[in-house]
Amino acid sequence: MDKLILHEDPVSGNCYKIRLTAALLGIRMERVEYDIMKGETRTPEFLAHINPVGRIPVLQVGQRFLPESNAACCYLGEGSALVPGDRFGRADMLRWMFFEQYHHEPNVATVRYWLTMVGTDALSELQRSMIPGKRLAGEAALQQMEDHLSLHDWFVGDAASLADIALFAYTHVAGEGGFDLGLYPHVGAWIARVRALPKFVPMRD
Amino acid sequence: MDKLILHEDPVSGNCYKIRLTAALLGIRMERVEYDIMKGETRTPEFLAHINPVGRIPVLQVGQRFLPESNAACCYLGEGSALVPGDRFGRADMLRWMFFEQYHHEPNVATVRYWLTMVGTDALSELQRSMIPGKRLAGEAALQQMEDHLSLHDWFVGDAASLADIALFAYTHVAGEGGFDLGLYPHVGAWIARVRALPKFVPMRD
Repeated sequence: MDKLILHEDPVSGNCYKIRLTAALLGIRMERVEYDIMKGETRTPEFLAHINPVGRIPVLQVGQRFLPESNAACCYLGEGSALVPGDRFGRADMLRWMFFEQYHHEPNVATVRYWLTMVGTDALSELQRSMIPGKRLAGEAALQQMEDHLSLHDWFVGDAASLADIALFAYTHVAGEGGFDLGLYPHVGAWIARVRALPKFVPMRD
Repeated sequence: MDKLILHEDPVSGNCYKIRLTAALLGIRMERVEYDIMKGETRTPEFLAHINPVGRIPVLQVGQRFLPESNAACCYLGEGSALVPGDRFGRADMLRWMFFEQYHHEPNVATVRYWLTMVGTDALSELQRSMIPGKRLAGEAALQQMEDHLSLHDWFVGDAASLADIALFAYTHVAGEGGFDLGLYPHVGAWIARVRALPKFVPMRD
């Protein structure tokens, strides 16, 4: 495998997904850290060499660059025990990863980001007006997870997959965005199962 | 392969992605049509049997159900010429498909949906206030596509992949949402390349 370098901000849940995947699989990866809030992913050097749209995480594979956290997890996980062995299972894993990016992250993660990183006072009027809708949509995403986990231990099949990693990242810290995880007991039990996986690493290390 | 049934609304670009993938690969698929605007995906029968959250498309594979358009495309496309043969290429294809769901669809497709299907008069005040931001974000996504396509014929490697199909669906009708495709000439040339693919089918058939 080519040399791997993760370009990341350690406080980002999207970056954590990749670190957790690598840790569970025992994959070595260098890390280069940037502070988003200080604009360190918007420097001319970053835009020219790492990602022209100034976003992290970016997984560097040799001299190639892969943005999008869930795509980086798929790169690391391909052919491993974190990817189901059957065709439907692989697609179902991606189903939950697309769900995460479309229904979960823009609501659960964005509200947390606005409240804890940006701060209520610094939000625009439009952002403030969007919070109630994002909270409802985030709660709907958590409820959909709860409904699934009331019947299954994992999102796909009988073992942890990349879908669990992708969804764990922002779910286990959803309380920081004001979401009440106590309303979703099966999600809570699943969070404990993920934490108990061999080689698990926490978000803040 | 198990029997395939696509549960869809023919006017949805997300449903079209799956039909286009199947057509290009010569895969036979039954189709069951629902009218979203008439609430036909919110009936007790649909919620009980097809998708408990009332969303389409859903690809039915035998007795199993797969929501999320891009996951369905991955199911159909696995191992075909529409998926790159190398590990980085496969992850890079997913990278553009996650980009589509996170940066493109919620902006380019949602503005089109609000303006053409819901109608300006029926939008809430919050939706109306969100249009300028979604238009800017949609233009940024189209510009990112333009920048890539100014250097490459396809999103990944030297041939069409599922990434091109996923991005084509809402890009080629972006004008209906008020986006000016004339500003993105390389996107226009790529749209023509997709349309010229053998076995291509249009969105409205």
